[in-house]
Amino acid sequence: MEATADGTKARAGVLTTPHGVIETPVFMPVGTQGTVKGLSSRELTQAGAGIILANTYHLYLRPGHEVIREAGGLHAFMNWSGGILTDSGGFQVASLAGLREITEDGVKFTSHIDGSTHFLRPEAAVAIQEALGADIIMAFDECVRYPASYDYVKAANMRTVKWAGRCKEAKSREDQALFGIVQGGVFPDLREESAKALVRIGFPGYAIGGLSVGEPKDEMLVALESAIAHLPEDKPRYLMGVGTPWDFVEGVARGVDMFDCVLPTRIARHGTAFTAAGKVIVRDKPYERDFSPLDPLCDCMVCRNYTRAYLRHLIRAKEMLGARLLSYHNVYFFIKFMRDIRNAIVNGTFPQFREDFLRLCGTIGE
Amino acid sequence: MEATADGTKARAGVLTTPHGVIETPVFMPVGTQGTVKGLSSRELTQAGAGIILANTYHLYLRPGHEVIREAGGLHAFMNWSGGILTDSGGFQVASLAGLREITEDGVKFTSHIDGSTHFLRPEAAVAIQEALGADIIMAFDECVRYPASYDYVKAANMRTVKWAGRCKEAKSREDQALFGIVQGGVFPDLREESAKALVRIGFPGYAIGGLSVGEPKDEMLVALESAIAHLPEDKPRYLMGVGTPWDFVEGVARGVDMFDCVLPTRIARHGTAFTAAGKVIVRDKPYERDFSPLDPLCDCMVCRNYTRAYLRHLIRAKEMLGARLLSYHNVYFFIKFMRDIRNAIVNGTFPQFREDFLRLCGTIGE
Repeated sequence: MEATADGTKARAGVLTTPHGVIETPVFMPVGTQGTVKGLSSRELTQAGAGIILANTYHLYLRPGHEVIREAGGLHAFMNWSGGILTDSGGFQVASLAGLREITEDGVKFTSHIDGSTHFLRPEAAVAIQEALGADIIMAFDECVRYPASYDYVKAANMRTVKWAGRCKEAKSREDQALFGIVQGGVFPDLREESAKALVRIGFPGYAIGGLSVGEPKDEMLVALESAIAHLPEDKPRYLMGVGTPWDFVEGVARGVDMFDCVLPTRIARHGTAFTAAGKVIVRDKPYERDFSPLDPLCDCMVCRNYTRAYLRHLIRAKEMLGARLLSYHNVYFFIKFMRDIRNAIVNGTFPQFREDFLRLCGTIGE
Repeated sequence: MEATADGTKARAGVLTTPHGVIETPVFMPVGTQGTVKGLSSRELTQAGAGIILANTYHLYLRPGHEVIREAGGLHAFMNWSGGILTDSGGFQVASLAGLREITEDGVKFTSHIDGSTHFLRPEAAVAIQEALGADIIMAFDECVRYPASYDYVKAANMRTVKWAGRCKEAKSREDQALFGIVQGGVFPDLREESAKALVRIGFPGYAIGGLSVGEPKDEMLVALESAIAHLPEDKPRYLMGVGTPWDFVEGVARGVDMFDCVLPTRIARHGTAFTAAGKVIVRDKPYERDFSPLDPLCDCMVCRNYTRAYLRHLIRAKEMLGARLLSYHNVYFFIKFMRDIRNAIVNGTFPQFREDFLRLCGTIGE
C-alpha cells in the first residue's frame, strides 16, 4: 500500500502479477470472449489498460478452454501481454445460462449458445481457469439474484464458502492468485459472515460479488461496507461488475482496489460517450453538425482525430468504426478517471476530489 | 506512364492528386459511408492505401453532403489525408434505391433508408461531389442492369453520354478531376460508341462501368477490351466495382489502371481471408486449433500477431474484432497484390507473373 486518504478508506497500492505491476485502484476493461469488444490488444495498451477481465463461462463454452490451453493460454491466444483476471463463471451461470440446478456439489446448467447441458463444480472452475492461465482467478461462487430471501442467501453463502475452500484445495498452479468471493446479498450480517469465513480459509485477495444486480445504491454501499470491514487491510479488494464513475469514487472511498464493468464498451455500441462534463449521447440530433471532439478535455486518439458529427454519422449508419471509436474513448476515459483517483489519493487530495466530483454529479444529474 | 509490359496492355503509371501521388495500377478500398468498414483511417495508411472510394449516393442520403461540406469536406470529416474518389451515385440508384423513374433529365428514386423521394440530375451529382470534395469525381451515369436488351442499353448509353457532357459543363471546382463513365453493357459496339463519344467530350480519365453485374467473365472481358481500345493511352482507366485478384491480373493485362471493390471487407465479415495460397474460410472447423497465421507469407499486422484459431473464435462469437482483423488483412493483401503486379510491370516480368498466377488459380480452383 502506497498511500491512504484521510477521512476515507481510499488507498493506493500495487498488484504484482506475472504480467506486470498494476497500480490500484484499477479499472479492468471486460474482454468477455477473449476480446474487449471492438478493441485490439494494442489499443488496450494505448488506452492505458494494465489488466483486463475475461469470462470463464464464455471461454469454456466457446472456443473451449482446451483450445486456449493448446494456444499457450489466453494471453497468447488473444495476443495480450498485460494482466488477466478470469471470473469463476458463477455470475454468468446465474444470469445467462438456462435451466439451472444447484446442488451442494456444483451447478448443472444449459448453454445459452446451443442448449447443451453442463455441470460446473468448484474443481472444474479452477481447472478451466488454470487452462486459461489468467494471473488472477476466482473461486467458484453462487451469485444470488436480487431480490432473494434471507434464508436463501444464507444457504447460498454457506455453499459459496465451502466451494471456495474446495477451489483452494483444487488449485495446482503456483503462478496464479486465487481470490475468494464474498457474497451475502444485501444483508450486512451475511456479508460479514461470508467475509469472515473466507478470511479464515485465507486468500491472497478478496472479491465482493453479487452487487449491482438490481439493488438500490444505498443497499449496495451498506453491503459493501459490511464486507470490507472484515477483510484484511493488506490484501486487494475487488468489487465485481461495478460500475460507473460514481461507483468508482464511492467504492474507492470505502476501500475497494479493483473494478470491472462492461459499461464503457456496451454504452459505446449504443452511441453514448462518457466525458468530463457527463454523458454525451452522440447519436442524437444536436451533434449532427458538431465538429468538436467528443470530450474537449480528453487527449485520447479519438478525441484528437474525430468529431462528434462524424461519430454520430458512424453510429447512425451502424458502421463498426463508430462502436469501435466510442469504445476506445470510453475505456480510455474510465482508465484515466481511475488514474486521477489514484493520483488524488497519493497527493492527499482525494476527499476534495470526491467532493468536487459529487457536486458535478449533482449538477449534471448523474 | 512509367512502363508497359511486352505482349500485354499492362502499364505502370502515376496519378497526381491534391492528396498525394498514387502509383497505378492501384486498388482502392471502398469506404461506402465515409469509412472503410471496420478500419480506421490510420489503419488504411498502414495497410498501404493511397486512395479510397466513397459513395455519393450513401453520403448524400446520410449524413447529407451539406454536413460534410461544413466539416470541410470528406477528407476532414473522416480524418483521411490520402486520395478519395467518389462515384456518381448511378450504380447505387440502379442497385439499391427503390422505385426508379429515369427521364432524359435525371433519375427519380426512393431512399433505401427511409423511402423518401429524391431526384438526381447530372448537375446535382456534380454539386454533391463538389461538396464532398473528393480528388476524383465521376460523371452521372445510368448503370444498366444485366441482362438488358440492345435497344435499351443503346438508349441508356446516349443518356449517359449527354449527362457526361452536362456534368463537365456543371463542374466548377478546379481541384477535382471529373472522369466520364463508359457504359454499353456487354455489347462491344455500344462500348465502342460510348468510349468514342466520351473521348470527344474529353475527360482527364475514363471509368468503365456496368461490368461485373452478373454477366459471364468472357463477356466482361470483351466489353472491357472494346471500351479500352477507344480510350486514349495517356489517360487513366478505371474499371468500376471489380473485383478479385484474377480480375486485377486480367484487367491490368488489358490496360486498366484503377480498381475498387467491396470484396475484401465484405468477405472478411463473413470469415474469409485471401491468402497467397487462395481463400481461407477461417470460420471453418479445421482452423479450430490452427495456431499459425492466416497467411504465412504475409507480413501484415494481423498475420504477425494473431492466429487462425483466434480469428475463427472471434468470427464465430460474432466479435467485432474478427471482422476488423480479417478486413485489415484482406485490404492489405489486395493492395500488396496490386503492388506486386506493378513491380512486375516495372521489372518487365508481368507476362510471367500473369502466367504463374493463372496456373495457381487453376491449381486451387479459383
